[in-house]
Amino acid sequence: MTQRIAVLGAGPSGLAQLRAFDAARRAGADVPEIVCFEKQSDLGGMWNYTWRTGLDQHGEPVHASMYRYLWSNGPKECLEFADYSFEEHFGRPIASYPPRPVLRDYIMGRIERSGLREQIRFNTAVHSVEYSEETGKFTVTVRELEEDRMVSEEFDWVVVATGHFSTPNAPAFEGLSQFPGRVLHAHDFRDACEFTGKDLLLVGSSYSAEDIGTQCYKYGAKSVTFSYRSAPMGYDWPDAFSERPLLTRVEGNTAHFIDGSSQDVDAIILCTGYQHHFPFLPDDLTLRTSNRLYPQDLYKGVFWIDNPRLVYLGMQDQYYTFNMFDAQAWLARDVILGRTALPDAEAMRADSEAWFARENACAGSDDDIDFQAAYVRDLVDRSDYPDFAIEEVAEMFKQWQRDKREDILGYRNRSYRSTITGTLAPPHHTRWMEAMDDSLQAFLDDSRDLEEQPEPRRPPAPVAATAGLPAEPVRRRA
Amino acid sequence: MTQRIAVLGAGPSGLAQLRAFDAARRAGADVPEIVCFEKQSDLGGMWNYTWRTGLDQHGEPVHASMYRYLWSNGPKECLEFADYSFEEHFGRPIASYPPRPVLRDYIMGRIERSGLREQIRFNTAVHSVEYSEETGKFTVTVRELEEDRMVSEEFDWVVVATGHFSTPNAPAFEGLSQFPGRVLHAHDFRDACEFTGKDLLLVGSSYSAEDIGTQCYKYGAKSVTFSYRSAPMGYDWPDAFSERPLLTRVEGNTAHFIDGSSQDVDAIILCTGYQHHFPFLPDDLTLRTSNRLYPQDLYKGVFWIDNPRLVYLGMQDQYYTFNMFDAQAWLARDVILGRTALPDAEAMRADSEAWFARENACAGSDDDIDFQAAYVRDLVDRSDYPDFAIEEVAEMFKQWQRDKREDILGYRNRSYRSTITGTLAPPHHTRWMEAMDDSLQAFLDDSRDLEEQPEPRRPPAPVAATAGLPAEPVRRRA
Repeated sequence: MTQRIAVLGAGPSGLAQLRAFDAARRAGADVPEIVCFEKQSDLGGMWNYTWRTGLDQHGEPVHASMYRYLWSNGPKECLEFADYSFEEHFGRPIASYPPRPVLRDYIMGRIERSGLREQIRFNTAVHSVEYSEETGKFTVTVRELEEDRMVSEEFDWVVVATGHFSTPNAPAFEGLSQFPGRVLHAHDFRDACEFTGKDLLLVGSSYSAEDIGTQCYKYGAKSVTFSYRSAPMGYDWPDAFSERPLLTRVEGNTAHFIDGSSQDVDAIILCTGYQHHFPFLPDDLTLRTSNRLYPQDLYKGVFWIDNPRLVYLGMQDQYYTFNMFDAQAWLARDVILGRTALPDAEAMRADSEAWFARENACAGSDDDIDFQAAYVRDLVDRSDYPDFAIEEVAEMFKQWQRDKREDILGYRNRSYRSTITGTLAPPHHTRWMEAMDDSLQAFLDDSRDLEEQPEPRRPPAPVAATAGLPAEPVRRRA
Repeated sequence: MTQRIAVLGAGPSGLAQLRAFDAARRAGADVPEIVCFEKQSDLGGMWNYTWRTGLDQHGEPVHASMYRYLWSNGPKECLEFADYSFEEHFGRPIASYPPRPVLRDYIMGRIERSGLREQIRFNTAVHSVEYSEETGKFTVTVRELEEDRMVSEEFDWVVVATGHFSTPNAPAFEGLSQFPGRVLHAHDFRDACEFTGKDLLLVGSSYSAEDIGTQCYKYGAKSVTFSYRSAPMGYDWPDAFSERPLLTRVEGNTAHFIDGSSQDVDAIILCTGYQHHFPFLPDDLTLRTSNRLYPQDLYKGVFWIDNPRLVYLGMQDQYYTFNMFDAQAWLARDVILGRTALPDAEAMRADSEAWFARENACAGSDDDIDFQAAYVRDLVDRSDYPDFAIEEVAEMFKQWQRDKREDILGYRNRSYRSTITGTLAPPHHTRWMEAMDDSLQAFLDDSRDLEEQPEPRRPPAPVAATAGLPAEPVRRRA
């Protein structure tokens, strides 16, 4: 009998799994029946924008943490699919830092062209997954949201690809209940224009804080105060920014910090990260981890060691993203197809623990990048996923970190060379600080120049020396 | 063997069920084992305020739709428990329109004094309920949120008291995705100060729109535009308010209405109601209804006709509230104790359909009030819940509607007479439009006078003739 596979989620990870099987099928393999369950009404996962926050029209938690005017915060050359380049998708080279709709178009394009949409059941939220030792099968119970009914089906494998940037981690701070303004988690942030002219407090010092803070400044916020727990981001911020240590309490609209300093603010955004959250899984199948490069209990970061017919994709903290999900999905596919055998539980645990220990030995972001490169390399070498210049991409990540350090408001104006096509990205027609329109049309419109831009809401930022000019590529393609 | 009862939710309805059994126990009855599951960390249900919106610290949907500065929008004399008066709780008469913390204190006080807290398992979210025809029992599976584990137990009865003002009904409108400001549902509204100086659009014409609109005006919103589907509220609004027909689309920050008019706004609040939502119930036990006075499929508005061991409390649209929940809980208790027998399914259905038809024949709010009074009367007459002046309260509701009609910003300054104690409520020390502090301490502080009030954020509204003076009671207690 044909095996049946449930893929939970049609975002980049889940789609990678569909694509992996499709590649095998095109190469002549007999592939199992795949059913992909997706809560949203379209594919794209986190890359779909919605004005909704909290609960959606069906009473389900809103998946999206995306906000308007979001531009990639890393070069697209670092996340390019090895089997589908940006150039193939757009028919020409594009700039290195595209806005959200452009990335979404790219991710979805690979799937649309493969005709895989029919494997996806949209508007279908997973309610529970149970495993029977007796039958060796999973029962997946879903709620068909439009029909408002529950349906159960049996599967031989379950691939959890539901992401881990949807369920906010939101600590409480004394005084938030009396704060006379909006308090929100980054998950609910949607439109920076709401904060034009405001003094903002952003609690956190990771990507959300950095990006939402610069974004709000770009769209006219009066000031941005970051509060960090361990260490400041330490960028060379313009005067409107400041970094303070841990928030201790809020009194009226005054935020107090652990160094005794204080700041009056109009709104508070908790950029305090996300939880891995799988409310549909039984306890003994639930991955419990902080956001790290190598979560425990997974073999090759993918297979649930206690029951490897349960597969987790994309549960790592991420430098590599889409191509890492691909490499994971290709390996999972080969195991499911019986092309690759898994070792016994003890060996899987030993391997997993060795990676875990190796991550713990990392000191600093260059180490972290090399660690994840090694992890992706290990994956890619185990399947026929097209080899790509993983180590070159690692160097690009390191250059990207230096670029940010040099110019936090201007690094998106730089260009990188694709390791897939060898093409150096052209500069974008507009510097990021002046690019207010994040639509695909505006991004691809090469006839535009600065004069045609909508009026920026604040005077243009000082232009960094290299801004708008193609940077030297990190290294030429081998 | 002792029967076991699961009560889902420790808000006013769930607490009414605990109190009903406690009253029987105090009168010498043998009562079943009761376990009340509550997602929040305290009792009070909707009456707990939290700054959180969307998902809580455990990734569970936030129950609360409460906002700061919420004052009762109906006289407390209409919602008084028949077995526990406001005067008994506070030790003296208080004004007719208390703010949220005062009502919460009252609801919780009855329970605290009964020592029923130990029956409640806090931080415990219901995940699923299953019924076995074989055993005749329910399996209730809950997630213990602090321990992050799932636990299942069997029960003979399940009482669903999870409320129906938590899951937003939020229709989409063209252009919301491009609106350059905040878009939220009333469920996520927390603090009016966020909207000081802003032009607001509130979509809806029921209690949420009316109350959030007046609230925002009180705290300094520049203008409030309501959009109605069927009919305007038609109150005698100050100039800053306007009522428009249905919103058709939003273009930039301009809202367009079906009559061709338009309005520029800074934020949009969807006051478009709530859904009955029971994601933990199997389809065949799920109540599906609009928000109405008599939902179908329930005998006496309480018992799930197809399986009357499943009880729903408080699922009606409400004029009567706390005392109606009590009357429901007392009847449910008597059926569970075997003191009252249920008729057969056919008779239950006939009864339910007669009430349903009777509601459909109502024309206008006076009819609606009389309908719900008749329903509560029918309940109270079937148990030993202390009789109270239900029909007098109905007249009070009608008077309240007239008071609102007369002075939408001043009706909360009026006083009503308790049908339980016969006491006429004293006037509050501060007129509602100038009462900015909604704390219990401020409300109960009789030493305060207008001079001690915090500076109002806008000039005091014109004082209606009767404002601040005790209104004539609707009717003396018989």
